[in-house]
Amino acid sequence: MSDLKNDRFLKALMRQPVDRTPVWMMRQAGRYLPEYRAVRSQAGDFMSLCKNTELACEVTLQPLERYEMDAAILFSDILTIPDAMGLGLYFETGEGPKFRKPVRTAADIEGLQVINTASDLAYVTDAVSMIRRELNGRVPLIGFSGSPWTLATYMIEGQSSRDFARAKTMLYTQPELMHQLLDKLALSVIDYLNAQIRAGAQAVQIFDTWGGALSHAAYAEFSLAYMQKIVAGLIRHYDGRDVPVILFTKGGGQWLEAMADTGCQALGLDWSTDIAAAKRRVGDRVALQGNMDPAVLRADAATIEHQVDAILAGFGGGPGHVFNLGHGITPDIDPDNVKVFIDAVHKFSKKY
Amino acid sequence: MSDLKNDRFLKALMRQPVDRTPVWMMRQAGRYLPEYRAVRSQAGDFMSLCKNTELACEVTLQPLERYEMDAAILFSDILTIPDAMGLGLYFETGEGPKFRKPVRTAADIEGLQVINTASDLAYVTDAVSMIRRELNGRVPLIGFSGSPWTLATYMIEGQSSRDFARAKTMLYTQPELMHQLLDKLALSVIDYLNAQIRAGAQAVQIFDTWGGALSHAAYAEFSLAYMQKIVAGLIRHYDGRDVPVILFTKGGGQWLEAMADTGCQALGLDWSTDIAAAKRRVGDRVALQGNMDPAVLRADAATIEHQVDAILAGFGGGPGHVFNLGHGITPDIDPDNVKVFIDAVHKFSKKY
Repeated sequence: MSDLKNDRFLKALMRQPVDRTPVWMMRQAGRYLPEYRAVRSQAGDFMSLCKNTELACEVTLQPLERYEMDAAILFSDILTIPDAMGLGLYFETGEGPKFRKPVRTAADIEGLQVINTASDLAYVTDAVSMIRRELNGRVPLIGFSGSPWTLATYMIEGQSSRDFARAKTMLYTQPELMHQLLDKLALSVIDYLNAQIRAGAQAVQIFDTWGGALSHAAYAEFSLAYMQKIVAGLIRHYDGRDVPVILFTKGGGQWLEAMADTGCQALGLDWSTDIAAAKRRVGDRVALQGNMDPAVLRADAATIEHQVDAILAGFGGGPGHVFNLGHGITPDIDPDNVKVFIDAVHKFSKKY
Repeated sequence: MSDLKNDRFLKALMRQPVDRTPVWMMRQAGRYLPEYRAVRSQAGDFMSLCKNTELACEVTLQPLERYEMDAAILFSDILTIPDAMGLGLYFETGEGPKFRKPVRTAADIEGLQVINTASDLAYVTDAVSMIRRELNGRVPLIGFSGSPWTLATYMIEGQSSRDFARAKTMLYTQPELMHQLLDKLALSVIDYLNAQIRAGAQAVQIFDTWGGALSHAAYAEFSLAYMQKIVAGLIRHYDGRDVPVILFTKGGGQWLEAMADTGCQALGLDWSTDIAAAKRRVGDRVALQGNMDPAVLRADAATIEHQVDAILAGFGGGPGHVFNLGHGITPDIDPDNVKVFIDAVHKFSKKY
C-alpha cells in the first residue's frame, strides 16, 4: 500500500511531534452533509448503506473532499457484531437502532457464537480495503467497534435506553451471565478489529458510549475489564507501523487513570472533562483526543474559533493531542460551520 | 415547633458524629409505593397532587410509615418556579413535563418576572408548614428547588431533551441572554428556598439534574455560578438551628472541588463517583450524600446488602455521610427491596 502523505494523526496518537494539531470528527460522514443524504436515499435504509461496499466507501471519503481532515473513519454502525450474531438489527425512523431478537435469558446468551469476521462481516473488511485503496495514502483510516458493555446494553434492551433497566438488572442479579455475554463480545471485538487492521485500518477506536451509565465499581468490572482484554488481544504492529488504539467512554471522565492503564495509546474525552486537568492526570502515558461540545458548531464563527482556541490552550501544546468533538456531530449542523471548526484547529494550533 | 427526635440527618450534613448513617431516598414519595398511586389517582394529574396541600402532605409522610427513614422531603415538582412564571406546566402520560409557553426569544426572557413565593407559590409553603406540623419532630424536613440551569433547559426546550439543542444554542450564541434568564431564576430560587425555610424546611437541596450535560467551562459559568449565588443568598440559620444546603449535580463528579467551594454543607453524588475518592478530594469541607445506583434495588436482598456495605466501606466511617441513592428511585422497584436497603444502611453503618 502507498505511503502516507499525512501522518499527523498517527504521530499525535503515538505522542510524537507534529506541525499542527490533527483533527477529525466522530460521525464526520453523516447526515449534516447533503452529499451524504443523497447517497443514503439512494441506498435505502441505514444498514443497506453500511453493507454496500462502494457506497460505504463513498460516504467515508465525502468529508475529506470538503475539509482538511487528518483522518478518515470507516463508515459503519457500532451494532454490526450483534447483527452478525443473528439478533436482527433494524432502524425505525427517528427511533434509533432496534433488535428483532433481544438477548434476555441464559439460553439466549449460551446460544450466541463468537463472530468470525471473515465470514460474518466481510462487508466491513471489504469496505476497509476499498477505502484504503481509494484514500491512496492521503490520510490514515480509523477502524472501530462498540465496546462489549455498550453492545450488551443494546442486545439486552433491544433498543436505546435511558436507564438500562434490563441490562443493569442482569448485571446485578446475574453477574456471571453478564460476564459470559461480555466475554463472547470481547472475543468477537478482538476478531473484528484485527480483521479491520489486516484489511488496512491504521488505528482503531473502541466506542464505549454507555460506560458512563455504570457505577464506578461496575464500570471497572463490566466495561473497562473487557476493553482491557481487547487491547491485549489486538494486533499492535502491522504493515511496518504501530497500530494505535483509542478508548472512548462517554461520561468516563472520572476514570481516565484506569483507562490509561489498559495499555491503549489514546483516550477520547467528552466535553465534560477539562482537557488541562486530564493531561495532568494521565501525564505522558497516553495521548488525548477531543473535546469540544458538538453544540458549539451551532454558534457563529467567532464563537467556534474561541472555543477551539480555548481547548488548544487548555492542552497547552506539546505532543499527544488529536482534536475532535466530544461526541458525534449532529445532523442539524451547517456544513460551513464545520469548515470554520477544522480550519480553526489547524490555524490556531500552530502557535502552541 | 417541637424538638427533633431524630437529628441524625442534620448532624451528618454538619459533619457531626452520629450513631449510625442517616438515610433517605430521592423521590422516596413516589410511584413505587401502592399507597402513593392510590392518592395520585384520587388527586387526578401530577400537578393537582402537588397543589393539594393535604394530599402533598400525605404522600410526603407515606415512606416514613413503611421505613426507618431519617428525613422527609417535600413532595413537589422541580418545575414549580417556571410554572409560577406563567409557562403553563403540564404532564403528558409517559412523556414527562412540558410547557405550553416555552421561552425562546429575548422578549420572552425580558417578560419573565422573578417570582414572589408568598403570592405565587403559597401552595408549596402551605405544604411545608403542614408537613412540619404532621411530622411533629419525628425527622427533619428537606425543602428543594431545581437549579437555574436545569430549570432553564426545560423552559427553553419546552420539555425533556436528550441533547439540549435549543438551550445550548442560546448559551453559545446569546450568552448574555442566557445569563439574564439564569439570573432571574437564581433570584427566584433564593426567594423560593428562603420561603420554604421560613415555613419549616430544616435543610434544602438544589437539584442540578442537567448540569452534567455542560462542558467543564460552561458548567462553571452557567450552572455552578448561579448555585453559588443561591447559596450566598439563603437563610443559613433559622429557628435556632443551622440550615444546611446540599448541592446535587447529576454527572458532576468531575467538579466536586468547585462545588464544595460554594459554601454549601454537602454534595450529592451520583453512582458514577467513587465515594472514597470523593472524600479524599473534598476533605473535611463538605459532607457527602449518596451514592448507590437505583438499579441495585432491582436485585435480591443479598446483592442490595453487599452494595450498601461497599459504599459504607468506601466512605470508611467518620462524620459527614448521608446515605442515599445516586438519583431518584424508579417506579418499578418492589417496596420490600426498599426495606432491605434502608435496614441495611442502619445495620451495617454501626460498624464503621
